[in-house]
Amino acid sequence: MAHKSTNITPVAHGVSDQERWRRHGHRGGVLWLTGLPGSGKSTLAFELERRLFAAGYRAYVLDGDNLRHGLNADLGFSPADRTENIRRVGEVAALFAGAGMVVITAFISPYRSDRTAARKAAKGNFHEIFLSAGLAVCEKRDPKGLYKKARRGEISEFTGVTAPYEAPESPELTIDTGAITVEQSLRLLIDHVDRNFKLPAE
Amino acid sequence: MAHKSTNITPVAHGVSDQERWRRHGHRGGVLWLTGLPGSGKSTLAFELERRLFAAGYRAYVLDGDNLRHGLNADLGFSPADRTENIRRVGEVAALFAGAGMVVITAFISPYRSDRTAARKAAKGNFHEIFLSAGLAVCEKRDPKGLYKKARRGEISEFTGVTAPYEAPESPELTIDTGAITVEQSLRLLIDHVDRNFKLPAE
Repeated sequence: MAHKSTNITPVAHGVSDQERWRRHGHRGGVLWLTGLPGSGKSTLAFELERRLFAAGYRAYVLDGDNLRHGLNADLGFSPADRTENIRRVGEVAALFAGAGMVVITAFISPYRSDRTAARKAAKGNFHEIFLSAGLAVCEKRDPKGLYKKARRGEISEFTGVTAPYEAPESPELTIDTGAITVEQSLRLLIDHVDRNFKLPAE
Repeated sequence: MAHKSTNITPVAHGVSDQERWRRHGHRGGVLWLTGLPGSGKSTLAFELERRLFAAGYRAYVLDGDNLRHGLNADLGFSPADRTENIRRVGEVAALFAGAGMVVITAFISPYRSDRTAARKAAKGNFHEIFLSAGLAVCEKRDPKGLYKKARRGEISEFTGVTAPYEAPESPELTIDTGAITVEQSLRLLIDHVDRNFKLPAE
């Protein structure tokens, strides 16, 4: 994208990343969940937020359903709007990571190039987490009845049915949420966070 | 703005506001600095971030100069783009406040209606802080040489010179940064935060 701003000089924050991390006992970064509708993104994100908080982490969920009521309320579901949606989420996630938080994003984010842009925005600690439950499983679950609506033609551009999902090529973690329980999935996620975010005790 | 999203249900966070506030010892909220270019917004914001952090607060600056390289890199300085710029900042500030942070925003934010929208997005703990140094003082300081450029016609729509600044009508705090020192201004800001954000010790 072309930058429209000129006469702009970035200013350094008054607090360094390292100071924030030391205070929190962990580094900041992004856990980017991606997968088909019904693959468990929101369920896992909010439960992970709760478990990480209980374990002393500063954790916060950015969720598609919530953000579309605020920051991204001007965007629909066309390919261009989906890309802009994910671009903004990637930039906001990067800000949260910069504030030393473990930010958990729960967006279908079907396009590979959009996820690559989010990774680039985060400048560092970015973990793509692929919830790999397949279409058959997700459609059978259909927790919000959206697959049914999409099959009846009542939702246009529905990922998995009438819009593509491009699976990650080298995610930091893959969880087959069609094959294991929520509890088992959470265990894998928490282990991953402990390994990649926790600082050694001083 | 019309909401373009349908089939969207907001999901509750896994951690309540109160749980976050108790952990931090303070509530989350927004310190919205507003004032002319050169009124001291960035200087005070970053120094306040550092002082609040040192005092145990979770504080983070959202700054015009920095955000325009990322989230708002697609926006220029026309009235419509300024409004969209501030709309997004207000929504992001609300997310940070929701994560229990004291978020300090440092934007000219010249339009009253835009600041009102940001207040509405924050749903609660929002503090409009007017840095009231007048045009003569700010233009004399001209820390980035932008007033000079604007007077030479090299910047269009420059607030105070060729674009309007609408002063706040009932800000939570007014600081005449043209009349007192940075140190005195910081003292007023920190007192304001201690009074409005700190929780009683349990």
